[in-house]
Amino acid sequence: MSALMPRHLVSIDDLDRDGIERVLDRAETFAEVSGREIKKVPALRGRTVVNLFYESSTRTLSSFELAAKRLSADVVSVRSAGSSVDKGESLKDTVRTLSAYDPAAIVIRSPHAGAAQLVARWTDAAVVNAGDGKHEHPTQALLDVFTLRRRFGSLDDLRIWIVGDVAHSRVARSDILAFARMGAAVTVCGPPTLIPRGIETLGCESSATLDGIEEADVVYVLRMQQERMTQAFVPSLREYADVYQIGPTRLSSGQVVMHPGPVNRGVELASATIDSDRALISEQVKAGVWVRMAVLYEMLVGSPVLAAVA
Amino acid sequence: MSALMPRHLVSIDDLDRDGIERVLDRAETFAEVSGREIKKVPALRGRTVVNLFYESSTRTLSSFELAAKRLSADVVSVRSAGSSVDKGESLKDTVRTLSAYDPAAIVIRSPHAGAAQLVARWTDAAVVNAGDGKHEHPTQALLDVFTLRRRFGSLDDLRIWIVGDVAHSRVARSDILAFARMGAAVTVCGPPTLIPRGIETLGCESSATLDGIEEADVVYVLRMQQERMTQAFVPSLREYADVYQIGPTRLSSGQVVMHPGPVNRGVELASATIDSDRALISEQVKAGVWVRMAVLYEMLVGSPVLAAVA
Amino acid sequence: MSALMPRHLVSIDDLDRDGIERVLDRAETFAEVSGREIKKVPALRGRTVVNLFYESSTRTLSSFELAAKRLSADVVSVRSAGSSVDKGESLKDTVRTLSAYDPAAIVIRSPHAGAAQLVARWTDAAVVNAGDGKHEHPTQALLDVFTLRRRFGSLDDLRIWIVGDVAHSRVARSDILAFARMGAAVTVCGPPTLIPRGIETLGCESSATLDGIEEADVVYVLRMQQERMTQAFVPSLREYADVYQIGPTRLSSGQVVMHPGPVNRGVELASATIDSDRALISEQVKAGVWVRMAVLYEMLVGSPVLAAVA
Repeated sequence: MSALMPRHLVSIDDLDRDGIERVLDRAETFAEVSGREIKKVPALRGRTVVNLFYESSTRTLSSFELAAKRLSADVVSVRSAGSSVDKGESLKDTVRTLSAYDPAAIVIRSPHAGAAQLVARWTDAAVVNAGDGKHEHPTQALLDVFTLRRRFGSLDDLRIWIVGDVAHSRVARSDILAFARMGAAVTVCGPPTLIPRGIETLGCESSATLDGIEEADVVYVLRMQQERMTQAFVPSLREYADVYQIGPTRLSSGQVVMHPGPVNRGVELASATIDSDRALISEQVKAGVWVRMAVLYEMLVGSPVLAAVA
Repeated sequence: MSALMPRHLVSIDDLDRDGIERVLDRAETFAEVSGREIKKVPALRGRTVVNLFYESSTRTLSSFELAAKRLSADVVSVRSAGSSVDKGESLKDTVRTLSAYDPAAIVIRSPHAGAAQLVARWTDAAVVNAGDGKHEHPTQALLDVFTLRRRFGSLDDLRIWIVGDVAHSRVARSDILAFARMGAAVTVCGPPTLIPRGIETLGCESSATLDGIEEADVVYVLRMQQERMTQAFVPSLREYADVYQIGPTRLSSGQVVMHPGPVNRGVELASATIDSDRALISEQVKAGVWVRMAVLYEMLVGSPVLAAVA
Repeated sequence: MSALMPRHLVSIDDLDRDGIERVLDRAETFAEVSGREIKKVPALRGRTVVNLFYESSTRTLSSFELAAKRLSADVVSVRSAGSSVDKGESLKDTVRTLSAYDPAAIVIRSPHAGAAQLVARWTDAAVVNAGDGKHEHPTQALLDVFTLRRRFGSLDDLRIWIVGDVAHSRVARSDILAFARMGAAVTVCGPPTLIPRGIETLGCESSATLDGIEEADVVYVLRMQQERMTQAFVPSLREYADVYQIGPTRLSSGQVVMHPGPVNRGVELASATIDSDRALISEQVKAGVWVRMAVLYEMLVGSPVLAAVA
């Protein structure tokens, strides 16, 4: 575990393959801690983690909150509703204010691509990007890699199809980079209006149809956002579902299905698929807490051996 | 205290009389803890309690949060505003996501009758119903029984009148069942439009007027919700108050008044009644924290003797 | 440190000069604690602090939350959105409900002047006014005095100009009282529509123009609220900024600039001023946590020497 950790985690590109493995190995130790009755360690006791969320999110916010609490940190969560954000304060001034609390880390989610990078410029805290517009969502990629490494042992030569609205997905962007870096062969698939031109430069192939998906080991399905309809990217959810929905008959044996959540049941995934044992969705959520504990731990505590349970 | 605790607390019917007594006895020990300077015990240290609230509520949410914190649990509260709920995620998928955090308990409040029962089907956590539509609110009933047992020693043969909008009240439903089970004689009273037909099958009598209320030991007044006016259940708040408001002159000596809160001053209760020493409203709120600590403790820790203070 | 602490902190007038010094001295010890890796003390372990906020506020709420957590208290925050407040419950009943939790302190922010005084009447908890309408915001004044004492050693004979919408500012009111009490010479400055008649009785001078500001040691700039435009107090933000904005050329050497936040960049303060090293804005925010820890500590724990780190 000699890989260096970056000061901030803005993009999955901030970690090389060794860095990713280091986070995943640490996450395994937290998976073990989470199996105990007392699911916490004193690693960040007396230190503060600030969550600054400009978008609503059950999953990501509660996952980060729980990760920080299980590391024994004091947690302050600031959401856009009911905050100075509403009074038109600039991101810069909000970050400076929160930085004056001397937090160990600021976890930022924003609808604007590049926000996390800006935050990192304005604070001494370690910054973790929890999703910035259509740009990146690196901890999602790490938990996805963790889930797959647990399932398949390694991602080397794993064939992964990412299906759906790739154009508007920070998850897709971070996953393509991470899966490729870990040795997988990635194909993105969706309506041509939702596959950005030149996406192959990230290290993947692309397909406008599901033809060939039967060779995939992993089908990673993206959330189809309702607002895309009104923007005329697809004619209707129903027509989208007719062509791209992953139903049980679409899957060949041995294939697993992943989704970053929240799922639109009956749109991008059939209910029967979600509820089948091929779906790794709950495993992904579980991994989210462990991986976020690991990211905070490796960035803030680093090399020391994991302290004894509190 | 050999009574068995249920895996979930969805309805007050999940507890027999011994089970209710067991919770109340434990609540007494937490009342004692709450009188200390350090008002907490390490019983749930390192375990997680998730509050999933689809309705706004100062009282119930803060009471459950505090109960869990005084048991030293890590608490994650998810409210409908600012959560995936807003993105249309199904209750089932939200519960699965939260269950992946491996919480010891999920406390659920929902506008839909039956929601808690469904949650119990989808999770390995212990589920506590914090109010589901017009169905039930069992911890409210337990804190009401606790308050009355403290005041009168026992509920056996206690005469309790429940006055107001019985038809739309989960509190009324749970209270009728609990009070009857503990030996009290219960009468419900309100405008015929707000008393459901067949309510007597729950084990109570009913009355359309306050005639006879002078014989009651306890007058339990329900909240009159403003929205009932527009739904034409009662002609106006004023006319409702004229007939059913409990003012000080209505009460005979020795009678006590209870209310689940929040109160509409001057509607179902006169201000003078609320502020008199006959009102047990603050006692009910106090009892709420102790009883919720007891419910979580008995469901999650069970028989061991209460550990020393942390 | 023999000064007596008041039972409640509603107005800065509740503290005499010795009382203010006592809080500031204690805040210095918490500044020291905050420089450690473990930034907390066990002073309020097992005790509860309730934050009751009827106005949105990133800064003040998160500052009080963090202060209470760093004192090891259990914290319950109730915001107006998503609470009984929305169901029309009176302040009195809400306070009684929260008081039934037996909190050590209630921190109250309200849009209504006098709210904190009322809360103090209805509870046994120590009440801290976190801003009540146009009335007062005493912890803001304390953190401002702390920041200036650190910078200048003492406020005696310090010349402080407070610039902006004095009429609608609880910060201005509390600051004038506190600065004067600590020995400073205070001048308030702004459009005549925004300077209340008779303000001099608080112990300051007033000026309708910035003429003479070059002699000030400290320029304290108030937030210009957008809604004042529509109320016709000033013709437009632009015209206000033309006359009263504090830009870098306006400042003479050695002057420092303060602001209670959140700042309207380009209105009351030029961006270059905010980002210069004359601005003490981040120091003020830092001081906020220490001073709030000190207020809670002195009110709730009092004279004992600060306990060892947890």
